[in-house]
Amino acid sequence: MAGPTPRATVKRNARRAEYDTATLKAILASDQVCHVAYVEDGEPRQIPTLYFCDDEYLYLHGNRQSALLRYVGKGGEICVTVTLVDGVVVARSGFHCSMNYRSVTLFGRGEALEGKDHLDILNEFVRALVPGHEQAVREPTSQELAATAVVRIPLTELSGKVRTGPPADDEGDLTSSVWAGEIPVARTRQAAVASEDLRDGIEMPDYIKNFEYRG
Amino acid sequence: MAGPTPRATVKRNARRAEYDTATLKAILASDQVCHVAYVEDGEPRQIPTLYFCDDEYLYLHGNRQSALLRYVGKGGEICVTVTLVDGVVVARSGFHCSMNYRSVTLFGRGEALEGKDHLDILNEFVRALVPGHEQAVREPTSQELAATAVVRIPLTELSGKVRTGPPADDEGDLTSSVWAGEIPVARTRQAAVASEDLRDGIEMPDYIKNFEYRG
Repeated sequence: MAGPTPRATVKRNARRAEYDTATLKAILASDQVCHVAYVEDGEPRQIPTLYFCDDEYLYLHGNRQSALLRYVGKGGEICVTVTLVDGVVVARSGFHCSMNYRSVTLFGRGEALEGKDHLDILNEFVRALVPGHEQAVREPTSQELAATAVVRIPLTELSGKVRTGPPADDEGDLTSSVWAGEIPVARTRQAAVASEDLRDGIEMPDYIKNFEYRG
Repeated sequence: MAGPTPRATVKRNARRAEYDTATLKAILASDQVCHVAYVEDGEPRQIPTLYFCDDEYLYLHGNRQSALLRYVGKGGEICVTVTLVDGVVVARSGFHCSMNYRSVTLFGRGEALEGKDHLDILNEFVRALVPGHEQAVREPTSQELAATAVVRIPLTELSGKVRTGPPADDEGDLTSSVWAGEIPVARTRQAAVASEDLRDGIEMPDYIKNFEYRG
């Protein structure tokens, strides 16, 4: 495989760079909210949005009239970043205090999906959000399909940065009396709350009881 | 107060737009990792990084040689987004499945800080990451200060989007037998892990025991 393109090459803290495609895809599979950057009037724009990936593409969806999806529809370059925070790194010096994290940045252009692919991917978005729920919901209406665009970006030009483990303190600080270590953090779900207008007699399905949040 | 500028005006799901400065600052105070978008060669770039805010500015720091900080140093426009995920919204239709979240987007140009301001803000970064630890760490060395840039962006051109509560299902779906509701999610800390090379006899300080992760 060829090396990363210049824009996908990590310049700072290159020791934390990650280019292994399988590792990067595993990071992408561990979250569901990304930030998408694009350019308008020569200036940066950015939005947080849901995504999911299969082995070849990252998928985005949204209102067809949204600035981002119109930009993508015109072939504009986007930059998608996914960032998982894994912990706070408490070093003996302020300089080495940091975070443990896994992030992936993907560059590319989007390709709009229509017809059966469009419908299938919208269904996959429901499954990515709440696995099992895609079997429960009704089919999208024609108005819903007309309102919602789906685009995919190939997982070809991507790179990542990963930091794990304890602080990397300077040799000279190891005799310090300052506490050092790591405080892991994780996002976890809490108890589900049924809608107040839920019809009587509807039980909470197992896929809601057993749901685990990714990200 | 004047209304939001065009680029800071929420176009999609405008009912979720938030322009109240106090509310937006409270959201910014609830997290510490942002995504910064900028433009290079006419294309979007993006990095996740730590930040903190006071009442007037959002602060970023990083290696002086990083592409982002060189861009900011040249007066380039940036777009900073902070996104807190609060829950998964499980609707009776796929179309209305969503996330509960709070996000803020800030536009502007950065201003580099030097001298005492530079030192003070680096100290504030330690305090923002692990409150109390800024009292424990040694002073930065001249090399560390030389390596690290600090910039601030005024909190003047910003807007937000907030979604809370149960799904907003279509009237016609309320008689559906599909379960609907919300699954809250939260990021929480786990037990702190001391560095293996910690000097014997160093106890975990109360500010580590009582640390609460923001974000």
